[in-house]
Amino acid sequence: MFCEIITIGDELLIGQVVDTNSAWMAEQLNLIGVRVKQISSVSDERQHIKNAIKEAEGRADIILMTGGLGPTNDDITKETLCEYFGTSLVFDDASFNHINELFSKRGLAVNELNHKQAEVPANCIPIANKSGTAPGMWFEENGKIYVSMPGVPFEMKDIMTSFVLPKLKERVKNVCVLHRTILTQGIGESFLAEKIADWENKLPPNIKLAYLPDIGRVRLRLTAVGNVEHELKQLLKSNLNVLHELICHYIYGYETDTLQEVVQKLMLEKKLSLATAESCTGGYLSHLITSVPGSSAYYRGSIIAYSYDVKEQVLLVPHDMLLKYGAVSEEVVLEMAKNVKTLLSSDCSISISGIAGPGGATPDKPIGTVWIAASFKEQYFSKKFLFGNRRDHNIIRAGQEGLNMLRKLLIRG
Amino acid sequence: MFCEIITIGDELLIGQVVDTNSAWMAEQLNLIGVRVKQISSVSDERQHIKNAIKEAEGRADIILMTGGLGPTNDDITKETLCEYFGTSLVFDDASFNHINELFSKRGLAVNELNHKQAEVPANCIPIANKSGTAPGMWFEENGKIYVSMPGVPFEMKDIMTSFVLPKLKERVKNVCVLHRTILTQGIGESFLAEKIADWENKLPPNIKLAYLPDIGRVRLRLTAVGNVEHELKQLLKSNLNVLHELICHYIYGYETDTLQEVVQKLMLEKKLSLATAESCTGGYLSHLITSVPGSSAYYRGSIIAYSYDVKEQVLLVPHDMLLKYGAVSEEVVLEMAKNVKTLLSSDCSISISGIAGPGGATPDKPIGTVWIAASFKEQYFSKKFLFGNRRDHNIIRAGQEGLNMLRKLLIRG
Repeated sequence: MFCEIITIGDELLIGQVVDTNSAWMAEQLNLIGVRVKQISSVSDERQHIKNAIKEAEGRADIILMTGGLGPTNDDITKETLCEYFGTSLVFDDASFNHINELFSKRGLAVNELNHKQAEVPANCIPIANKSGTAPGMWFEENGKIYVSMPGVPFEMKDIMTSFVLPKLKERVKNVCVLHRTILTQGIGESFLAEKIADWENKLPPNIKLAYLPDIGRVRLRLTAVGNVEHELKQLLKSNLNVLHELICHYIYGYETDTLQEVVQKLMLEKKLSLATAESCTGGYLSHLITSVPGSSAYYRGSIIAYSYDVKEQVLLVPHDMLLKYGAVSEEVVLEMAKNVKTLLSSDCSISISGIAGPGGATPDKPIGTVWIAASFKEQYFSKKFLFGNRRDHNIIRAGQEGLNMLRKLLIRG
Repeated sequence: MFCEIITIGDELLIGQVVDTNSAWMAEQLNLIGVRVKQISSVSDERQHIKNAIKEAEGRADIILMTGGLGPTNDDITKETLCEYFGTSLVFDDASFNHINELFSKRGLAVNELNHKQAEVPANCIPIANKSGTAPGMWFEENGKIYVSMPGVPFEMKDIMTSFVLPKLKERVKNVCVLHRTILTQGIGESFLAEKIADWENKLPPNIKLAYLPDIGRVRLRLTAVGNVEHELKQLLKSNLNVLHELICHYIYGYETDTLQEVVQKLMLEKKLSLATAESCTGGYLSHLITSVPGSSAYYRGSIIAYSYDVKEQVLLVPHDMLLKYGAVSEEVVLEMAKNVKTLLSSDCSISISGIAGPGGATPDKPIGTVWIAASFKEQYFSKKFLFGNRRDHNIIRAGQEGLNMLRKLLIRG
């Protein structure tokens, strides 16, 4: 089955917004065995949208559209779809009730524009949009499937995951596509590729490997295609076992795991508590940890010591130590790890001090120099990292390395 | 003049790579008055590429292509362009000399694949690629312009900046396109639309308005098209002035500003220092603040009090107060704002305490209930918010509201 993606909105064509929706959708569609033939971004103009649909229809069985469903005048996708299918808008009670509920929860009254959002073309199945006011729409005409979704990424993702992908999956039969994703941290893409080159070359022809590099981590995705599910599962498993042997040191999880989820799971199992002390990451580590629901069951908090004074006055790092070694040093980062544990009464701690850039570098401490320490009761571990020149990447990589350091300590301990 | 962008490569259609090239090109083209009609991503297949060019040609005067120019077998753009224009490849000495030079600088010998990279279609003007081995190509046929460039972003950008954009600019005369973006926070899209409906309806036909909603904020983009730049600027300005009057309370910045940048600018101008105390946002506010280079000049740090104990022991919120009012209360959030200022010796503070969800709700404090306080010396302001059900959004919205509250205090003070 072939699919085409059409993203609608002038903001894409003036370069104000990078279209990240298409790549996400394409990835998800490939996972269920649907191939994407073409991705097109078009303007908020009726004729242009209709032409794009017509062209896509000639190449694909499924046409997924995003954008142009907001409550304002520049949003014309619904009216255009009515023209295209020769139908008109009807009021959908379920969608209106949902909008009403969403607003009343926030103590707001529905206005006329919101009322209009509950109107959908008569020939569609409206799709509930849990996180927004514009319903998705599913059409089937002349043996083709058309879906229109909001352009806001999280709304589109909700609708895709809860409705569109499962429904499309039912139509894709006789082909079994299995995916396994292995998550690695602390090794670059090319070094990883070198380590597993022999294994990769021996993969059977129906298993494909993709490297998905990200800041500080590389995901390896294996895709197996076949007809018999249990045979395919067995084949994947035996190949994965060999891979695991080769790179087990770098693997922190599988599929959609995050380091913060893996750490939370370990901490809860072991009934331990955690405190953190951050300098250059400025709260990012704490944000990662608390982004996981349920983190309050083990995470006590953090001291973000962004200035020397706070390191001294709140984190109680001795003045002489700061003077002698500097804030970015093994001595200071270990002291931070120790003191924050006492101050916040926790079993474990992570501390980070470094130079995120662009300012703050010295001849012996270039931008990207970061000291990280982790402790588990009386065990301490510390390490110096040299990341790159980008502030945003340095912050992300330091946060991840901190979590991974604690993870390794917990597993060994 | 209309332009279309075609990005070529299977990696785009399986979602492995997000197409960031198109947005960059679109932005640059708009700045010189070239409007982008459509952006299409197609696969590495000859017929598909030729069809895409044919379709684009029907809508635009300029067709810009990226991708498929590498040295390996899956790169077929050059051969496809030869077929399309009914011509053949010829060896280009200048391109070969450049490749040779590039390799000898790195101490490498040119191999046969690199030799092939110096071949270009006979009907093109080759464009030097300073940072890579694949030359760009400029074609003019039947009154249309076609450009083919490598897909590697920095190579494409070099070729665009040094050759393509200046050459296109010569052809675009008498058209001026101006954009202005207004950033609002604290009001939903539909309520904003209602407030400015009269103004919007009276906009002259050559000014278009677009709503770009995001979590907790809405950007308004005005695009003006005309012939005389200073007249257009004047027209935009007078319309913007009226808009400003209508919604000044919600505007926090313009163009690509962020709330954290606006706050940093104000704090540095006023030579003030800031400390924060976070509960439910768990470090996100601190992360926002420190994501801006130079924030260490005014930001002292934060106490992330994720547990009751830390609120008591480190932030010194009285035990009785926590018991009586609960952690999510006006009393506690004001106490947090006051104490963190003393502890971290700062002039200003922001404090946040709420229920991000999914756990922690009580009958009178549903998920999404967040108390926020901001202080500027002896002035305190506090407010209760009721966001939604999503943990991630509640965290983002609370962080932004906290920054905006401080911004307003600073402007008034």
